[in-house]
Amino acid sequence: MSYLLYYSPSTASMPVHWMLLELGVPFEARLIDFATGAQRSADYLRLNPAGRVPTLVVDGVPRGESAALLMLLAERHPEAGLAPAPGSAARPVWLETMVFLANSVLPAMRGWFYADKDGDPAGADAVRDFARRQIESGMQRLDDRLSDGRQYLLGEQLSTADLLALVLMRWTRHMPRPATSWPNLAIYIKRLRQRPAFVEVNAREGLSDWLNDDPTAPPA
Amino acid sequence: MSYLLYYSPSTASMPVHWMLLELGVPFEARLIDFATGAQRSADYLRLNPAGRVPTLVVDGVPRGESAALLMLLAERHPEAGLAPAPGSAARPVWLETMVFLANSVLPAMRGWFYADKDGDPAGADAVRDFARRQIESGMQRLDDRLSDGRQYLLGEQLSTADLLALVLMRWTRHMPRPATSWPNLAIYIKRLRQRPAFVEVNAREGLSDWLNDDPTAPPA
Repeated sequence: MSYLLYYSPSTASMPVHWMLLELGVPFEARLIDFATGAQRSADYLRLNPAGRVPTLVVDGVPRGESAALLMLLAERHPEAGLAPAPGSAARPVWLETMVFLANSVLPAMRGWFYADKDGDPAGADAVRDFARRQIESGMQRLDDRLSDGRQYLLGEQLSTADLLALVLMRWTRHMPRPATSWPNLAIYIKRLRQRPAFVEVNAREGLSDWLNDDPTAPPA
Repeated sequence: MSYLLYYSPSTASMPVHWMLLELGVPFEARLIDFATGAQRSADYLRLNPAGRVPTLVVDGVPRGESAALLMLLAERHPEAGLAPAPGSAARPVWLETMVFLANSVLPAMRGWFYADKDGDPAGADAVRDFARRQIESGMQRLDDRLSDGRQYLLGEQLSTADLLALVLMRWTRHMPRPATSWPNLAIYIKRLRQRPAFVEVNAREGLSDWLNDDPTAPPA
């Protein structure tokens, strides 16, 4: 069982990088430096034709799509308990939550951050406005879900959905309405940021903001 | 094991409706009539707080998100072979393909069809243009994948990814570039439309266009 992760700091590779650390499995990580356009190099495009991160080479085969990689890792390492077992009562809500994050909040982030690059720059403000509404609507749904006091999105057990959700929430930190401004999300964010593997993935990716000991972090 | 599907013709409930027919399991289907706003009725919002279809009530519990429901049904009915088994060689690519469809093409359809309703009507043209590029890029990726002559997205075995993909392709039929204009997609579409369960789901949802015996269907 071998893992080689191609990542870029603070991107969609971050939840996968974090999960590998949570699992405690051996892996190699290679930086794809967006500043030099490494994601568009011929070598990288052979691994990931869309030129995106993450790519996780699993037993020699390159795989993409962060939400799919989280699900795959959960399946390969059931002992870590990061996904409810097939057939268990919590399994449907785990699938539903993973798909919800992957098909609403995650793609809206593409619109928010890449409106100019992926589309006509003349329409970028409208695309960003549309994306912002989708992101805020998604954050509201997540806040509603946590309003019963549960620790994690599925209840009392951490899952891959939390890893993906926290990184999505991190991406809102410079948006008009950051995730930390929702009351239940603020508590949830603070709880998850305590995890040693989250602190570690930030250190490995050279990130120092949006941590619990960041002086700019909001109270929660 | 009981299934109750809330659906609206030609929407995101269609792949789930189709899959229930492929599985040959008993289920009840209830129409949510968008023309009368039934998706926003108090009774329906209790089942599906976002007011969307599908909702599949599984053993008494309402579940949403079409891609998640396809994955759940595949897991509950492994004998149908609509998903590679966990641990099998084809499993990672199935997960990757399901997530790709769910987080790129599917949400872009929301932008294409609901730019006015979900966003500021003044920016709707820009949102639609952005969405169209994402949809066409997704269709190109699917066409590329089928260019090796494979029958289905995963190879020679039909999977839930095909059910979701075909419905997404169906939604392009009145777009500037319909899926049928890609050469490999045209062949693939014609192949999948032959399936008796696809013909049956169209009949049950009262749909008569975009079928192989539709005189407006393109040659393939």
